[in-house]
Amino acid sequence: MGSIWRTTRALCSPHHSSRIGRLRMSTQELLKVDIINEKQGVGEICMQKSPVNSLDRAMLAGLVDSISRLERDGCRALLITSGVRGIFSAGLNLLDLYDQQKEDLLQYWGMVQEMFLRLYGTSMLTVACITGAAPAAGCLISTSCDYRLMLDQPKTVIGLNESLVGLPVPDWMRMNFCDVVGRRQTDLALQMGLLFPARDALRIGLVDQVADSPEQLREAALQRVAQFLKVPDEGRVPSKRISTEPLLSYLSGRRQKDAELFVTSLSQESVQAVMGKYLEALRNKKA
Amino acid sequence: MGSIWRTTRALCSPHHSSRIGRLRMSTQELLKVDIINEKQGVGEICMQKSPVNSLDRAMLAGLVDSISRLERDGCRALLITSGVRGIFSAGLNLLDLYDQQKEDLLQYWGMVQEMFLRLYGTSMLTVACITGAAPAAGCLISTSCDYRLMLDQPKTVIGLNESLVGLPVPDWMRMNFCDVVGRRQTDLALQMGLLFPARDALRIGLVDQVADSPEQLREAALQRVAQFLKVPDEGRVPSKRISTEPLLSYLSGRRQKDAELFVTSLSQESVQAVMGKYLEALRNKKA
Amino acid sequence: MGSIWRTTRALCSPHHSSRIGRLRMSTQELLKVDIINEKQGVGEICMQKSPVNSLDRAMLAGLVDSISRLERDGCRALLITSGVRGIFSAGLNLLDLYDQQKEDLLQYWGMVQEMFLRLYGTSMLTVACITGAAPAAGCLISTSCDYRLMLDQPKTVIGLNESLVGLPVPDWMRMNFCDVVGRRQTDLALQMGLLFPARDALRIGLVDQVADSPEQLREAALQRVAQFLKVPDEGRVPSKRISTEPLLSYLSGRRQKDAELFVTSLSQESVQAVMGKYLEALRNKKA
Repeated sequence: MGSIWRTTRALCSPHHSSRIGRLRMSTQELLKVDIINEKQGVGEICMQKSPVNSLDRAMLAGLVDSISRLERDGCRALLITSGVRGIFSAGLNLLDLYDQQKEDLLQYWGMVQEMFLRLYGTSMLTVACITGAAPAAGCLISTSCDYRLMLDQPKTVIGLNESLVGLPVPDWMRMNFCDVVGRRQTDLALQMGLLFPARDALRIGLVDQVADSPEQLREAALQRVAQFLKVPDEGRVPSKRISTEPLLSYLSGRRQKDAELFVTSLSQESVQAVMGKYLEALRNKKA
Repeated sequence: MGSIWRTTRALCSPHHSSRIGRLRMSTQELLKVDIINEKQGVGEICMQKSPVNSLDRAMLAGLVDSISRLERDGCRALLITSGVRGIFSAGLNLLDLYDQQKEDLLQYWGMVQEMFLRLYGTSMLTVACITGAAPAAGCLISTSCDYRLMLDQPKTVIGLNESLVGLPVPDWMRMNFCDVVGRRQTDLALQMGLLFPARDALRIGLVDQVADSPEQLREAALQRVAQFLKVPDEGRVPSKRISTEPLLSYLSGRRQKDAELFVTSLSQESVQAVMGKYLEALRNKKA
Repeated sequence: MGSIWRTTRALCSPHHSSRIGRLRMSTQELLKVDIINEKQGVGEICMQKSPVNSLDRAMLAGLVDSISRLERDGCRALLITSGVRGIFSAGLNLLDLYDQQKEDLLQYWGMVQEMFLRLYGTSMLTVACITGAAPAAGCLISTSCDYRLMLDQPKTVIGLNESLVGLPVPDWMRMNFCDVVGRRQTDLALQMGLLFPARDALRIGLVDQVADSPEQLREAALQRVAQFLKVPDEGRVPSKRISTEPLLSYLSGRRQKDAELFVTSLSQESVQAVMGKYLEALRNKKA
């Protein structure tokens, strides 16, 4: 699938400044960042962290940095893609959440918030090319974008399935999901931990378009980007801002509280126990 | 239809404590309360007050008591069903609202609020098995649940049709309806007093599933319950609470005000006149 | 198309009082106002300002006056129609917004607000008969009504396409649109400046019904009005008020601020430049 990623030039050099020094050297391997259409101003961030594009600290910091760089380069649109076959992103790595120190959890959660605030809050038009499974925070990345295309193939599913591992979905993540599919579908999906195949995701509005192959999906995405960008930024950007501003303000104003709430929920014995069982089941499945 | 209700043991003894002493003896006749699956923890409240399961004081108190008892017995799920053919519940009895003293109206309305707060607010998974007509508060009981199945047969309709008798729908009842079907359908349905057959209810999202027979409906309900209960309560319950908490808080914080608003609306001469005409028409229809 | 407008009597005399004295004489030519069903109490306002029913000061004041007069005459329902073939209303006249003095812009915007507050806020049942294109404020007039029927014919489209000319949609206009089609469709439609043909408008809920001819549309509208009016006003009017009150309060409480925000956005050099180009393109198209 890698062959469809057209590269013009790398933006993510190993020398760019990063708040997390120790991550500097690895960002380029995790994320491939390009301007794929200089004239229209279209950038692309391709997640390529095998095996499942899990959102560890390096990925989160890399996403934030890449968005800033594309903005500084004057991009008007951003494609989020995956270079891993069958996976968009499996979301947060449960290993980062299981049996950790409170301080580490708080700091990690702050990075999750930051990634969301930067992706959801960018003035660029953002398009998610969901060519593989997008559970949990993989779904969050998708719903943080302005437009979603999804590959219609087995095992490519999307949804906030946190409840399956005994984890509550934070309110802002729920709000973001709810803004896309509406209240009723949110209630059902989050309470049942549902993961939707492409056709079902399209039916409930969780994605906007489906495609039968990665090539068709990319072609459709680029067409849609061109259509969006016909709207002058004077009209498009305020339309986006009026939509995103309330949730951005809400979360920005309670990052510390949100982090503490999350860590408290996460640290409950019962939740850790469910996660422990889930991780063990995963290990047994692999073995 | 009674033959399909499987009974394991009665929970609703004639001796349980009740805030409304004079109702004690009759609850068991009005409501049949069972644990239908001990292992999964599934309870059932079957409304069986002929002819239309109208929600008088005894039914309202009985529902509240039954929910509390099933919770105390550790149930994780609750089916609300009807033992009356062709009727789920006709809602509040208009006779309790027409030509009554203000104090009686306030007290009755407090019991309506209490029933909603307990049913909507329970941590149990709640499933409405709508095997017959569910107008007005019959609809409210349905939309207070987490999931709704409806029988696809003539005369089995659902909706908040209060406006037809000149009654405004209280704001919290409207909010609860709106959370299920969305703003636009709420505007249309409440302004026109619409009652939806099963297929239309499914189309606008007022119910989640339809069935061709009571047996199929029950089978489908039990399957869905089993699917919901695969989610550990650590994930399912907070997902439900984050959804229900705002409306629970809202109504809890203004029960007195809400009751007075309702009674004031209800006591308007014009409203009582419309209700009077409606009741007379009902009487003539029967005669 | 004029032949389908049944006239019983004109309400809009040239002598009625008007806040804008100089507009008095022209209102009757711009708007034809009739009571089309005395028994049911159904009024009609037919916009007939060639070529595109643009909402200049005279039209805005005329709409406000006509609504008040129909209310005073005891009408329970109001049809908004167009006497111009192929056009419902093209919305605000860009010429009134381009290269104007701030004071004039503020005053004009106040009239736009007033028209919305009166149309959206009336207790009458309001039905938009969209027999032609309804972009921008033409869409606003439609979504300010309780029910919308639309002609299914080429070039008859509806939507808030302001972003195409670099204009942001004011928040209350967005809220009104969002109450009809929901959050997700609002995000897409406003960011892309989408205009929907009848079938697409029906699919996303932007209109409630489509028709193949103006005659069928009018017939369907009158049937729907009769159905709505079977609900007694004691039930229908509070149902409408509980729905409209929040947005009415919101805008009423910030008219000055809203006007200043709009004028500030509008006066930006970049916005005026985009509008200038758009107007020039229109002129070239005509030439």
